[in-house]
Amino acid sequence: MEDIGDYEEVKSLKSLKMEKGLLYETIVTTLNGEGEGNAAPIGVICKSPKEVILYLYEGSHTLSNILATGNFTVNITDDPILFTEATLGDLESDYFIPYSEYLILKGASSFFTATMKKVKSIKRRDRYGESRLFIITADVKRICKGKNFKEPLNRSIYAIIESLINYTRINRVENKGDIIDRILEMKRVVDKVGGSREKMAMKMIIDSLRTKLDQQSNALQR
Amino acid sequence: MEDIGDYEEVKSLKSLKMEKGLLYETIVTTLNGEGEGNAAPIGVICKSPKEVILYLYEGSHTLSNILATGNFTVNITDDPILFTEATLGDLESDYFIPYSEYLILKGASSFFTATMKKVKSIKRRDRYGESRLFIITADVKRICKGKNFKEPLNRSIYAIIESLINYTRINRVENKGDIIDRILEMKRVVDKVGGSREKMAMKMIIDSLRTKLDQQSNALQR
Repeated sequence: MEDIGDYEEVKSLKSLKMEKGLLYETIVTTLNGEGEGNAAPIGVICKSPKEVILYLYEGSHTLSNILATGNFTVNITDDPILFTEATLGDLESDYFIPYSEYLILKGASSFFTATMKKVKSIKRRDRYGESRLFIITADVKRICKGKNFKEPLNRSIYAIIESLINYTRINRVENKGDIIDRILEMKRVVDKVGGSREKMAMKMIIDSLRTKLDQQSNALQR
Repeated sequence: MEDIGDYEEVKSLKSLKMEKGLLYETIVTTLNGEGEGNAAPIGVICKSPKEVILYLYEGSHTLSNILATGNFTVNITDDPILFTEATLGDLESDYFIPYSEYLILKGASSFFTATMKKVKSIKRRDRYGESRLFIITADVKRICKGKNFKEPLNRSIYAIIESLINYTRINRVENKGDIIDRILEMKRVVDKVGGSREKMAMKMIIDSLRTKLDQQSNALQR
């Protein structure tokens, strides 16, 4: 087993600033039955200080590896190159560090190992068609916090900021439909990944937008 | 002068994890000539460990207040309600704490005061029309890091993640134009606010997307 570097073991996902109910953007590493490594960007929901939930679509390596071995590692990073290479499929084996029955992503600012305890599959229809979705609940095993700890990425505050940027443009643009569509898209992001304060902020933005548009349309009718 | 709470004074923007050349989403507080407070969400560029640059459009209170007094405070927070209320214009005076000739936003996880040393104005045409833009360079005065410090928000990693989410959808959607437009919009965000690693990641995504689309169009022509 290689030296994994400068990490301190902690007891709860709270120590990684992960909050119950929120979804974080991470890179999940897994091994297949033959011991070959895989890394993919995956949203991980914090269910409790020692439990997480993953939503995985049929056909992904991450899913088949977790179903085969029961194990996975959640790696926390904000490195854009790691996210990009994990998505484009270019992560070579020298990015991985073996760690007991797990694999760690080199450069992760923190990571934790997990073991599947429940799996449920449902059919899901979205705007892109029908697919089978697997909902995996897992117990968190060992949590290692890096000396150079960075908080896990949650997209909701950025969805709020992008909504606000669009909100301030509403008076300047002809095509208000695009702005409204974009804000509603950001609302879907917040509903999926955000906490109660982000959801409250989104409600304020949409209420204020509605009032503004009503006033403009009343003014036009006069 | 009110007690401003639990902050530690530090010497450099590096202590707030602000990097040269990057743009951070903050809330800027200012006072007008009559001593009335204002707060607005403003992107602040870190020019050096003790200097920042602001781009402000004609007509904003933040601009007229800085031109009148020379002073402003940059407040660092990730609170969605503060960003939303500052944009919708609902921040009441009990959100502000007077601090020498400055104003601090209550609840900021860190803040620093600054004094304008240079101002330049240029005419700018964008897709929304022509407007006058003021470029303000300022010296950073006092930097106060909160005990519960959180890193300032930079949108570039989220632009990368959103691009990657769109990238993985390209095979599933009919209208590839929407996906490409969205990724190019995210490229503009990264060019504006991001660092070298985010720019490199964006280049990798666009190159890979181009290869993929070329292969598909070649396959169609066969």
